[in-house]
Amino acid sequence: MTKQTISVQLSTAKKQKPKADQLEFGRTFTDHMFIMDYSAESGWHDPRIIPYQPIEMDPAAMVYHYGQSVFEGLKAYLSNKGKVLLFRPEKNVERLNKSNDRLCIPRVDPDTVLEGLKQLLQIDKEWIPTAEGTSLYIRPFIISTEPYLGVAPSKTYKLLIILSPVGSYYKEGIHPVKIAVESEFVRAVAGGTGNAKTAGNYAASLKAQEVAESKGFSQVLWLDGIEKKYIEEVGSMNIFFKINGEIVTPALNGSILEGITRNSVIYLLKQWGLSVTEKRISVDELIQAHKVGQLEEAFGTGTAAVISPVGELIWKEENFVINNGKTGEIAKKLYDTITGIQKGALPDSFGWTVEVDSVSQTC
Amino acid sequence: MTKQTISVQLSTAKKQKPKADQLEFGRTFTDHMFIMDYSAESGWHDPRIIPYQPIEMDPAAMVYHYGQSVFEGLKAYLSNKGKVLLFRPEKNVERLNKSNDRLCIPRVDPDTVLEGLKQLLQIDKEWIPTAEGTSLYIRPFIISTEPYLGVAPSKTYKLLIILSPVGSYYKEGIHPVKIAVESEFVRAVAGGTGNAKTAGNYAASLKAQEVAESKGFSQVLWLDGIEKKYIEEVGSMNIFFKINGEIVTPALNGSILEGITRNSVIYLLKQWGLSVTEKRISVDELIQAHKVGQLEEAFGTGTAAVISPVGELIWKEENFVINNGKTGEIAKKLYDTITGIQKGALPDSFGWTVEVDSVSQTC
Ligand SMILES: Cc1ncc(COP(=O)(O)O)c(C=O)c1O
Ligand SMILES: Cc1ncc(COP(=O)(O)O)c(C=O)c1O
Repeated sequence: MTKQTISVQLSTAKKQKPKADQLEFGRTFTDHMFIMDYSAESGWHDPRIIPYQPIEMDPAAMVYHYGQSVFEGLKAYLSNKGKVLLFRPEKNVERLNKSNDRLCIPRVDPDTVLEGLKQLLQIDKEWIPTAEGTSLYIRPFIISTEPYLGVAPSKTYKLLIILSPVGSYYKEGIHPVKIAVESEFVRAVAGGTGNAKTAGNYAASLKAQEVAESKGFSQVLWLDGIEKKYIEEVGSMNIFFKINGEIVTPALNGSILEGITRNSVIYLLKQWGLSVTEKRISVDELIQAHKVGQLEEAFGTGTAAVISPVGELIWKEENFVINNGKTGEIAKKLYDTITGIQKGALPDSFGWTVEVDSVSQTC
Repeated sequence: MTKQTISVQLSTAKKQKPKADQLEFGRTFTDHMFIMDYSAESGWHDPRIIPYQPIEMDPAAMVYHYGQSVFEGLKAYLSNKGKVLLFRPEKNVERLNKSNDRLCIPRVDPDTVLEGLKQLLQIDKEWIPTAEGTSLYIRPFIISTEPYLGVAPSKTYKLLIILSPVGSYYKEGIHPVKIAVESEFVRAVAGGTGNAKTAGNYAASLKAQEVAESKGFSQVLWLDGIEKKYIEEVGSMNIFFKINGEIVTPALNGSILEGITRNSVIYLLKQWGLSVTEKRISVDELIQAHKVGQLEEAFGTGTAAVISPVGELIWKEENFVINNGKTGEIAKKLYDTITGIQKGALPDSFGWTVEVDSVSQTC
C-alpha cells in the first residue's frame, strides 16, 4: 500500500469552542473530519478532509444490522511550546488493523491514516484545549456501508476520524473509583471478539454497566466468560493490582483488549525496576490478598482516563476498600509520568510522542 | 403505551420492481419505509411512512461506535386470494422488545409497530412477489443515534422498517447444505448477548463464516462458548436432529436465539404426534449417533430459509453425510406445511397467520 494524497475542503463557518471548564467527554466535535472510502474495485481511496458533517447512508447499510465496525481512541495534546503531540499513534493504527482482521474488514494503510490524522490536527489545532486534565480526543472508526441484508462481510466501508475536545473522563478527575466485579453478565469470551475494538463488545457491556451505576459504582470489572473466576478488564480500561509488593495484571488471553496504556505502564514499571507480572488472576485470590492486607493498590489504565485508581471493589455484595480509598503511590506516579510525557513536559526516553507539525513538514 | 397515529408521505417516483427470476436476498428495497423516533422527553414518537431514502446521522451517532442496536426479520406473502399475510408478527415484536431489554433500548409499543408495518405493507403491496419460494422480507431495526462518545445507553433512537422482495435464501432452494461445526471461534456465551437479536452477534460470526465458505461449506454450526462441546445453532437458524426416531433440538440456554420458526416447528411436530425434546446435545453424541447409523435427519429452521436440510456435517476435518445427502422426510413435510400456512394455501389451525388488509380495516 502506498500513502495517498489527501484532499482538503475547509469549513467556511467555524463553530464556537467550548470553555475549558465546560468540557465534557465526547459531546463536542471540531470543525473538520477525515474520511476515506473502500470499495472492492478501488481499495481504500479518496482520503479527504472535509467540514464536520452528518453522514448519509442507505437504511440497509450493513453496520446498522450486523455491526461490522471497528474503532480506536487516542489523544492529542498541545505542549507548552505550542507543538501538537500524539502518544504512540502508530500503535492505534496497528490495533485498528488487528481489529480489522477479526472483523473481516480490509486493512488500512497506516501511513495514509496517520498522515490524514496529522493534517486534520493541524487544521483543527485551535480546538486542542490546554487546561489541566484536558486534551483533544481522537476517534478513528470504520463502518460497513453496503446496503445488503445478508450476513457476510460488506463490500464497501467508510473510515472516519473525528475529534472532540475533552475534559477528564471521570468528572472527579484522578480520584479513586468504586468498581463492581460482575458475576452475571459477560463481555467477551475466548474465540469471540474481546481482543478487537469493535462495537458489539461495548453494546454487550451496557446492561451490566447500567446495573452497576444504579448501585453507585462507576464501572464493572469483568470476569472471564468461561469460568467466571478470572479477572479480565474494566469497561474501557485494563486493570493492575499491587499485591504484596508485586504488580500484576491479567495476561492477554484473547478476550482482553491489548491496551496501549497497559503496554506503556508495563514498560514504565519495568524501567523503574519494579516487578510486573502478566498472569491469570482469580477474583478469589484478589479477595484473599485483601483479607490478609496485601492488596495494596488497584488501578485501571486506558486512553480516556489514563490512570484511574480503584478505591473500592465490590464482590458479591461485599465492599473491599483498597489503600483506604486513596490514590496509591504507583497510580499517582504513573499518571504524572504518562501525562507528563504526553504533554511534552517530561523527557520521553521511549520515543513515544510524535510531534505533528514537524513530522508533517517532512512529508 | 397507546397506539399512535401514523402519518404517510407517498413517494412520487416509483422504482422498477425486479423480475421474479432475478430476485436475490436483501438487495432491493421497496418504495417506502416506516420510521419512528425516540427521545427521553417524548418517548417513541412521530411514527410515519415516508419514501425509502438514506438516513442522515452525525458521525458520532452511538450505533457506529458502540453497536447499540437490535433487529428483527419476518416475511409477508400474497395469498392466491390476493391477501397480504404475515406469519406470527406479534412474536417478532415481542422478541424485539426482549432484545431491547438486553441492549438497554426503550421498549416499543407493539400495536404502533404492527400497525405501522401493516400500513407500510398495504402501500407497498405490489412489491410482494408471488413466484414459488419468493416473499417480501421485512426488516424492523432500532439504532442508537445520540452523538456521544461515552459508553452508555443512547438517549435517542430511530426505529425503521424496510422491505425487500426476496427469492430463496439459498440460491439452490430447498436443497441440503453442508455445515461445518466450528471449533475455534465463538458466537455467543451465557451472560452475553446470544439470545438477543443484536448487531454484534453477527459481526462476531463473520470470520468463522468466511473460513467455512472458503472450504465450500455454506454455514457454521456453533458450539457453546464455555466447553465448546454442546451444539447451539447455525448462523441464522436454529437446528434440529432426528436421532433414532426422536427429534431433538438444543434447549434455550441464554446464548441461543429463540427462533420463531423453531417454536412453530416444535408445535407442528407435537401436533403430528412426534416426540420432540429440547435438551443439551453434545457434538460427540451427534457424531456417535451418526457412526451407529442413528442420525437420521438434520435441518435448520429460520425465517429466511424456513427449513434448510443439512446434508453433511463437517467436524474436525471429517465429513458426516446425513440421509445420503438428501432432504429428509420431516424437513420436507415441515417446509411444505409452514410455507403452505404462510401463503394461506393450507389451513392454519394455530391462528398463526395475520391478514393485513382485513385487520387494518378494523383499526
Ligand atoms: C475494552 C477496553 N479495554 C482496555 C482499553 C484501554 O486501551 P488503551 O489503553 O489503548 O486506551 C480500552 C480503551 O481503549 C477498552 O475499550
Ligand atoms: C442467530 C439466529 N438464530 C436463529 C434464527 C431463527 O429465528 P427465526 O426462526 O425467528 O427467524 C435467526 C434468524 O432470525 C438468527 O439470526
